[in-house]
Amino acid sequence: MSVINIGLVGVGKIVSDQHLPALAGSRDYELVATADPHARHAPVPGYAALGEMLEAHPELEAVAICTPTHLRYSQARIALEQGRSVLLEKPPGATLSEVEDLVELAERQGCTLFAAWHSRFAPAVAEAREWLRNKAITRVEIDWREDVRVWHPGQAWIWEPTGMGVFDPGINALSIATEILPRAFFLRDARLWVPSNCQAPIAAALTFTDTEGTPIVADFDFRQPSPPIWSIHVETEAGRLSLLRGGCRLELDGQCLLDAEEREYPGLYARFAELIRQRRSDVDLAPLRHVADACLAAWREPTEPFIE
Amino acid sequence: MSVINIGLVGVGKIVSDQHLPALAGSRDYELVATADPHARHAPVPGYAALGEMLEAHPELEAVAICTPTHLRYSQARIALEQGRSVLLEKPPGATLSEVEDLVELAERQGCTLFAAWHSRFAPAVAEAREWLRNKAITRVEIDWREDVRVWHPGQAWIWEPTGMGVFDPGINALSIATEILPRAFFLRDARLWVPSNCQAPIAAALTFTDTEGTPIVADFDFRQPSPPIWSIHVETEAGRLSLLRGGCRLELDGQCLLDAEEREYPGLYARFAELIRQRRSDVDLAPLRHVADACLAAWREPTEPFIE
Repeated sequence: MSVINIGLVGVGKIVSDQHLPALAGSRDYELVATADPHARHAPVPGYAALGEMLEAHPELEAVAICTPTHLRYSQARIALEQGRSVLLEKPPGATLSEVEDLVELAERQGCTLFAAWHSRFAPAVAEAREWLRNKAITRVEIDWREDVRVWHPGQAWIWEPTGMGVFDPGINALSIATEILPRAFFLRDARLWVPSNCQAPIAAALTFTDTEGTPIVADFDFRQPSPPIWSIHVETEAGRLSLLRGGCRLELDGQCLLDAEEREYPGLYARFAELIRQRRSDVDLAPLRHVADACLAAWREPTEPFIE
Repeated sequence: MSVINIGLVGVGKIVSDQHLPALAGSRDYELVATADPHARHAPVPGYAALGEMLEAHPELEAVAICTPTHLRYSQARIALEQGRSVLLEKPPGATLSEVEDLVELAERQGCTLFAAWHSRFAPAVAEAREWLRNKAITRVEIDWREDVRVWHPGQAWIWEPTGMGVFDPGINALSIATEILPRAFFLRDARLWVPSNCQAPIAAALTFTDTEGTPIVADFDFRQPSPPIWSIHVETEAGRLSLLRGGCRLELDGQCLLDAEEREYPGLYARFAELIRQRRSDVDLAPLRHVADACLAAWREPTEPFIE
């Protein structure tokens, strides 16, 4: 199979930590260039703007957009209008409406658009989904708690509205829950705690039910002392499934079924290559829609100022 | 054509003011019964619960759901599961996800589901849409301002999250804008003013752009002294179209093209009858999605407490 020539848009921490190693370890891709007004990845040509990069490299078939969230739409639009396929880092946009527009544009252009929910590629997620497919589920508990000072040091943007606060990690939990649970679910009650000097919540307590009335409760908190807790517990009539360590470990009634190293981005890029070759898109809006629903319907309580 | 037997779920102010007169004036419907634990409409049988009403009246083909927003999903689901068609008062649900679920359920059941954006049936809306279809639009200004004490007396629920505050009237403006403007648009910036003793905004300043970059600015305010302002102005290269008085009056460069009395609900029910006879649904989520986007991405500023 021919190699996919790819460019990276936005060269920040997530690119150095995840995208570059995943691309370096893949035989599907050749990294051709980057676009970022402030940073570059020395081994390949760096451009200040996406438009310049695309003009200089007509051989670029795909780009991965890793800019701050509020810039993703305009960058994705430029790439799609030039017929290039697009991977959107999570969340895929600052609003639902702009992502809906990109979906239509990608379809018109015959390009692949991929909303990259990386947590869905954690090692135990596919097995959890398979096991739950035909089980009678009675209750789901999502605990996603971490110390913001440890996991997001100096990330002031996270406290702005489009930074989403505790929903930045919480949306990863929602991306897994919407992947492994066999039925759709929706918000019944939401409470957000917002530091008095911030725009985005530091903690959230959400209650959902699925179409059969099964309760799903989620507890997101940025005030958790280390170690972090990234767990989803699913009670079923056939036993209790626990997905732990962000999807790296799977337990059934406390017995370990699988425990593996995190390799999300290699899986993500393998899926993107498959989509490009099949000329298909994969843009699931459900995780972002749940966060928007929570922001629409939540009770907000001010809480003490956050000082890093 | 056969008459549609219809039931009303929730018998509050909007039902007395709008639904009952519209049904009384239509030859498409026969009002069979109502369901509300606290109120009834004397001429027809009243039931405390929707389930009772449906059991007593298997001839009911359709129901209109006019309960408080957070109850619409559960009521709509009961009706759809029994194969009845459903009209949802605006907004169609407390969250986007629950409305998406109803869309799927209606499709599976072969029932009509209609999200009733009543302002789209204001007399000048269709003509405004037609006139704008092929015009080069350069700017849109939406002014939707009214005195909450005059238009929502005693409605404490409006200040709760699902009451949506100033978005309760503002979503009417968004339902017209999404109907008359030829291209999709999405939020670029939002600012909400929230009284310190309330959950929902008393004012909102929103900036959108459409897919061609045209600016669309919206100013929603509950602090407007009477008379209210319910206007949409569209600047085009062929002149300035103004839709005034909530869609009752149309002007072009200040010249009146149309000025008519408000008759939204008769139009709404005529459309619902047409949908039922064609076995089709009409559920446009765009207006609610714009409000959810604003809640997701807005800067919130506390403002003085609201005391009615």
